[in-house]
Amino acid sequence: MTAKIFPTAQDAENAFYEALESADLEAMMAVWAEDEEIVCIHPTGPRLAGQEQVRQSWAKIFSGGARNRVHVTHQVTLSGMMMEVHSVHENFALEDDAPGRGDARPAPIVATNVYLRTAAGWRMIVHHASPAPGQAEPAPRETGHKILH
Amino acid sequence: MTAKIFPTAQDAENAFYEALESADLEAMMAVWAEDEEIVCIHPTGPRLAGQEQVRQSWAKIFSGGARNRVHVTHQVTLSGMMMEVHSVHENFALEDDAPGRGDARPAPIVATNVYLRTAAGWRMIVHHASPAPGQAEPAPRETGHKILH
Repeated sequence: MTAKIFPTAQDAENAFYEALESADLEAMMAVWAEDEEIVCIHPTGPRLAGQEQVRQSWAKIFSGGARNRVHVTHQVTLSGMMMEVHSVHENFALEDDAPGRGDARPAPIVATNVYLRTAAGWRMIVHHASPAPGQAEPAPRETGHKILH
Repeated sequence: MTAKIFPTAQDAENAFYEALESADLEAMMAVWAEDEEIVCIHPTGPRLAGQEQVRQSWAKIFSGGARNRVHVTHQVTLSGMMMEVHSVHENFALEDDAPGRGDARPAPIVATNVYLRTAAGWRMIVHHASPAPGQAEPAPRETGHKILH
């Protein structure tokens, strides 16, 4: 159980990436809905479902010890009353990334994040991440935000 | 414009995979919401957003001419009033796949499909597909269905 309340899906998303950056397992799991139907796909990984598989996967990732900085860009938001979908690009940089090494940055990860409005605020129910090809975006596009309902 | 009405998200999903199997571009685009914020990520591909990019990508895929059979398994459904998320495994087999060649089947594609309830029935707004690793599922799990609201 946790006392964290995220008033908006964006608050939950911010907490998700903060937990990822600080490799904080409890903070990470506080973002997820307390639900057995949560789904998490790490880049090139299999589909994980349910609290146990999702927690184990983050524990393993965080046990590596490396702290990452993640810069989230190109957000497209699809908002419903009870569910919200964020499509984002995750741009990773290792903590020891020195300025001037920027040309060696890896290609972004494209992520689909789905949030659910629960009695305890907004929580993540799906995180699907996969490597984007190294090429540039197919077409430049403004960050979009669309309220559907 | 199209007259297709999908009374449920599952109807839209069935039409999506039928269009994919028959390489029918118009049937495929009839499944998608008429919305500029739709998002489509093909396996190992970049994020595509908006009608034009999504239509062009399917046109290119379908121009290859090969018809695929797709067997959808391991569905997990997260249902809201206006939005529904299906996590599925797509198991592809080429049309000329002879019986007995089953041992050479490729690893499944894991897909996150998001549907929106519109004035014209349920439509797809997100399709995020990525290759699952060749290994077995991390744990056997029953197909799940959860009504959230």
